[in-house]
Amino acid sequence: MPHWDLEPTTLLVVLDLVGIFVFAISGALVAVRKELDLFAVLVLAGTTGLGGGFLRDVLIGATPPAALADWRYLLAPVGAGLVTFYFHPTLGRLERRVTVFDAFGLAVFCVAGAVKALEYGLGPLPAALLGMVTGIGGGMVRDVLAGRVPVVFRGELYATPALAGAGVAVVGLELGAPLLPVAVAGAAVCLVWRLLALWRNWQAPKPTGPASV
Amino acid sequence: MPHWDLEPTTLLVVLDLVGIFVFAISGALVAVRKELDLFAVLVLAGTTGLGGGFLRDVLIGATPPAALADWRYLLAPVGAGLVTFYFHPTLGRLERRVTVFDAFGLAVFCVAGAVKALEYGLGPLPAALLGMVTGIGGGMVRDVLAGRVPVVFRGELYATPALAGAGVAVVGLELGAPLLPVAVAGAAVCLVWRLLALWRNWQAPKPTGPASV
Amino acid sequence: MPHWDLEPTTLLVVLDLVGIFVFAISGALVAVRKELDLFAVLVLAGTTGLGGGFLRDVLIGATPPAALADWRYLLAPVGAGLVTFYFHPTLGRLERRVTVFDAFGLAVFCVAGAVKALEYGLGPLPAALLGMVTGIGGGMVRDVLAGRVPVVFRGELYATPALAGAGVAVVGLELGAPLLPVAVAGAAVCLVWRLLALWRNWQAPKPTGPASV
Repeated sequence: MPHWDLEPTTLLVVLDLVGIFVFAISGALVAVRKELDLFAVLVLAGTTGLGGGFLRDVLIGATPPAALADWRYLLAPVGAGLVTFYFHPTLGRLERRVTVFDAFGLAVFCVAGAVKALEYGLGPLPAALLGMVTGIGGGMVRDVLAGRVPVVFRGELYATPALAGAGVAVVGLELGAPLLPVAVAGAAVCLVWRLLALWRNWQAPKPTGPASV
Repeated sequence: MPHWDLEPTTLLVVLDLVGIFVFAISGALVAVRKELDLFAVLVLAGTTGLGGGFLRDVLIGATPPAALADWRYLLAPVGAGLVTFYFHPTLGRLERRVTVFDAFGLAVFCVAGAVKALEYGLGPLPAALLGMVTGIGGGMVRDVLAGRVPVVFRGELYATPALAGAGVAVVGLELGAPLLPVAVAGAAVCLVWRLLALWRNWQAPKPTGPASV
Repeated sequence: MPHWDLEPTTLLVVLDLVGIFVFAISGALVAVRKELDLFAVLVLAGTTGLGGGFLRDVLIGATPPAALADWRYLLAPVGAGLVTFYFHPTLGRLERRVTVFDAFGLAVFCVAGAVKALEYGLGPLPAALLGMVTGIGGGMVRDVLAGRVPVVFRGELYATPALAGAGVAVVGLELGAPLLPVAVAGAAVCLVWRLLALWRNWQAPKPTGPASV
């Protein structure tokens, strides 16, 4: 099974923490809008920021998840939750910009998830799927806990870019390319696709014909 | 702890894939009815087809789950999702027949889940429960993601046949009977019970007395 | 990593079973109120009583969870579910008293969860969080399955006492204090805080300013 010797450099950790922070803000904003309390804000921040990685790590048997072995990964969502709790009117006005950061987090997570799954011995197709799960899982847990159908189901292009980015990373590594350029290429594919979908308001196709089959 | 040497024969794999495919169709139909997009159709197909096995494997520590180590298990729900997306009016008309196939999937899954739990060293009672979880878990995840109370809670007899089938398999194996006849007997108990419940419209008992305690 | 030689004494097992039983009653009451059937009553009893421990054990890699290796842990929620199914009008009248028992269960679970997480090598902060998850997780699963926003999010002080109790236990053990007094102190902090919150109707703070950011 492949294993890459790249140490988690400072840059990678910073990227990961930024991704968690931005995802956590999106979770905290949902809690604020539902007029939930401070604890709910922190829990939705934590589950949104860390949930995708937790799902991946539990499924590949990498327990305890990385976020439970490194306190910085726990402080990031707590910080995001507190910031959102006290400054949510400002964050709400910035939401368009938060969405751009969120796309950045999605790009980081889908590649990191796929690489970790490959390292744990999974095949290319499951690894790409787990990359997608890492990217979208936190938001799905957030929406289920908040009592709404996951936004990722509602026609906005979100999961497809994550799957594409993870797929690019998996194919590159399987072809023997070095980790760093492969990771950058995968993240770029996800990021550009997601930003274009936001900008052009692309939608995923919906079923045609009578819906009440 | 017992271990049976039966190789997963072609027949067993085919049965498993049919079960996943049929369960996945029921998940995809829910997504179509909620007018969700193609991605939601595929995700609900996948979680419904594979979710029960994922829950079981995560709980018994059999990670990564079998479905992530064999690409055929991933293609079955994708195929079911695409078929449902494009042909859902036809499938909707066939739903009564789909329900019969679904009972078949339930019978296969409850026995396979119980046998796997025994192989991983669990006792008879937990093994029977995990057999039931394997059978009903995918549908429960489907309903939670689709934002509705799991149908398995709504009075239709669904979980009881699964628990009975798993229990028959566990008791038979604990008594030392060979795997194949035990598995067939367990699956038959589940299948016949479920089909009778559908045909006679049997309901699980509901609490009596004032509901708003 | 620390390991305490205290055998799970009869007292501890009894406390644990009482906690599971009381939590399971709260789950079963939700099912009865939603007019769900007997199976739903049993499943919500089981997930509420055992769900927190399952989440903790899956996250720290302690699979299969303890509750799947000891049949007494499975019979407790089944008993609670049956009692609730048949005597729910009486239980409903006793609910205020059930809430007190529930606080007792919360106190036991948050400490037991934190201690187990430390034994599995987690750091202090994750261990305290997992103690809280052990205490509140079952109720969250219950509410998601019952199709409502987790009550733990709705302003009643519930998670904070669990986190405080788990934190006291973790700090005590990290400072080298013996297990028994540390566990009692942690549980007492959680119990007293929770009962005071119930008695005085304390609420967690909510976000201020325009909610529809």
